[in-house]
Amino acid sequence: MKATVIHGARDVRLEEVASPVLSTGGDAIVRVVAACVCGSDLSPYRGVTPVEEPTRIGHEFVGIVEEVGPDVARIKVGDFVIAPFYDCDMTCANCLNGVSASCLHGGWWGNGDRMGGFADGAQGEFVRVPHADGTLVATPEQPDAALVPSLLALSDVMGTGHHAAVSAGVGAESTVVVVGDGAVGLCAILAARRLGASRIVAMSRHADRQALAREFGATDVIEERGDEGVEQVKALFDGLGADCVLECVGTKESMDQAIRSARPGGMIGYVGVPNGGAELPIRRLFGTNVGVNGGVAPVRNYIEELLTEVLAGTLNPGPVFDLELPLSEVAEAYAAMDERRATKVLLRP
Amino acid sequence: MKATVIHGARDVRLEEVASPVLSTGGDAIVRVVAACVCGSDLSPYRGVTPVEEPTRIGHEFVGIVEEVGPDVARIKVGDFVIAPFYDCDMTCANCLNGVSASCLHGGWWGNGDRMGGFADGAQGEFVRVPHADGTLVATPEQPDAALVPSLLALSDVMGTGHHAAVSAGVGAESTVVVVGDGAVGLCAILAARRLGASRIVAMSRHADRQALAREFGATDVIEERGDEGVEQVKALFDGLGADCVLECVGTKESMDQAIRSARPGGMIGYVGVPNGGAELPIRRLFGTNVGVNGGVAPVRNYIEELLTEVLAGTLNPGPVFDLELPLSEVAEAYAAMDERRATKVLLRP
Repeated sequence: MKATVIHGARDVRLEEVASPVLSTGGDAIVRVVAACVCGSDLSPYRGVTPVEEPTRIGHEFVGIVEEVGPDVARIKVGDFVIAPFYDCDMTCANCLNGVSASCLHGGWWGNGDRMGGFADGAQGEFVRVPHADGTLVATPEQPDAALVPSLLALSDVMGTGHHAAVSAGVGAESTVVVVGDGAVGLCAILAARRLGASRIVAMSRHADRQALAREFGATDVIEERGDEGVEQVKALFDGLGADCVLECVGTKESMDQAIRSARPGGMIGYVGVPNGGAELPIRRLFGTNVGVNGGVAPVRNYIEELLTEVLAGTLNPGPVFDLELPLSEVAEAYAAMDERRATKVLLRP
Repeated sequence: MKATVIHGARDVRLEEVASPVLSTGGDAIVRVVAACVCGSDLSPYRGVTPVEEPTRIGHEFVGIVEEVGPDVARIKVGDFVIAPFYDCDMTCANCLNGVSASCLHGGWWGNGDRMGGFADGAQGEFVRVPHADGTLVATPEQPDAALVPSLLALSDVMGTGHHAAVSAGVGAESTVVVVGDGAVGLCAILAARRLGASRIVAMSRHADRQALAREFGATDVIEERGDEGVEQVKALFDGLGADCVLECVGTKESMDQAIRSARPGGMIGYVGVPNGGAELPIRRLFGTNVGVNGGVAPVRNYIEELLTEVLAGTLNPGPVFDLELPLSEVAEAYAAMDERRATKVLLRP
């Protein structure tokens, strides 16, 4: 089969690789219908994290189940399934506690040291899925082709934006600031609206993203960053800041912006993978009773709830994909995201 | 009147000072019935924070209202009142948001630069209370003398322990670890039990405090700290850690203990004033979805709720006071706490 392999900085190739085989009894082979490129994939692509050997890549996909092992009971051949950006059993204590990204038996796509051997990266034609009954969520019937982008968003960005909102305690009438206007930040806006926020401020400098932010539920847009951005946020909220701030970037600057945008007693929900050495400033947090909650989003725990609304047409994160390419053009997909010509690229094998 | 003045490290004196006078229209004069020494008072006493000039000290008291200004409507002369460890108006946005320790017009006892001039420290015979209607909570009738210690605990330690528990989201069936066996830690145990925790682990090395911890609701006691303490906590909870960890110390070591004692997806509620330069390790928190929430406890927001139970006899934090002295022996009160001969000393003018 064909799958994407990253060889080094700015060197992504679609190559012929061995087709996956069932090995554990509880696994499944899924034919990928749609995958995508994640902001975190740009880290090795840009050379920020070194690529030590050719590595399979991609962790977001939806597809059709081709084969299942003899111990798979819930997932059937022919099901249309959504996979989270990791695999998990949904039976261990962490999964049952709602933190399936910390599954005691789970792991990451594209990793050779996984239950039963290799679990493929998602930017390819097929993926072997460990503990398929836990990892995969099947739609009740074959979905409309038009729904595929929104279903694919449940693999990562929609669930991750939702996790930011849940972690910050967004509820009815909450005031919310979203730091970051990438796909996750945009989905966080959708999530905040869905949870009943009364006012949602998008921090965004890009006209196209501002437009989508407003479509997703942003009531206000602030282009400034740093001191001026904080000042503008505070001016909207009695000079104090917002109840909830959703940090969807992961830099020292974005976290600083988030903390300073929260009112005393407010809460940061953060899902941006922390970059750089900056730690959280405990004295500032202590003095203002601003809490910090979040982490690697347990999107698997959210899929059923969000899926119902996607299928009903009431939740539509699909527009975060602003470019669609065949898998054969995966190198261009990375380049487009690297050069900010696209927010998020959907790939079709 | 007589009041306590700190002159320098280990130099605390009861001195004759000017009696307070009403000045703002909204203030009150309270005759102190009972006050106490706080762990944080030991910071200047031990020379950890320098004492630059003779300074009035103390911030926890209950008493009888002697005089009120013409604008005071709710509080009456003769009321028995509880004061939080700060003053606040309970009408500003922060107070209404539940964070009265960040009151926009509030401040700290013993401070010369307060609304209407000087607000006395609490370790004296009288205190001028700015915006008395916001700051003070009156009991419905004169309380039994036996209740005074528990009522005094509402000034700070009981509300602070409660804040740790609330910040960590303790609820029915939560598993809880309490780091710190001082008066606040012990009150945090009481608070966790009151909120329905199913299991409460006290980290304590002192036999007398262990006994009180068990009386307050601890189901388990762990004496070890560091790696071994963490290992013992995890062993109690499926190898994973507790749902909620209440950090009631404020050192780098205690926060590290707290973070490592929480299960993936767990929450730290912290109320220990952060000492030293340590910041929060964001990557570790991110990787395990452990949240950190808390800060300066808004005890004023909690007094009414907790007071009802103290008056009913169902909440009894009074035993945290294990030594009672006349105010004239305030120097001995500090020495007893400094030398760990007492957990918390109650002072009677």
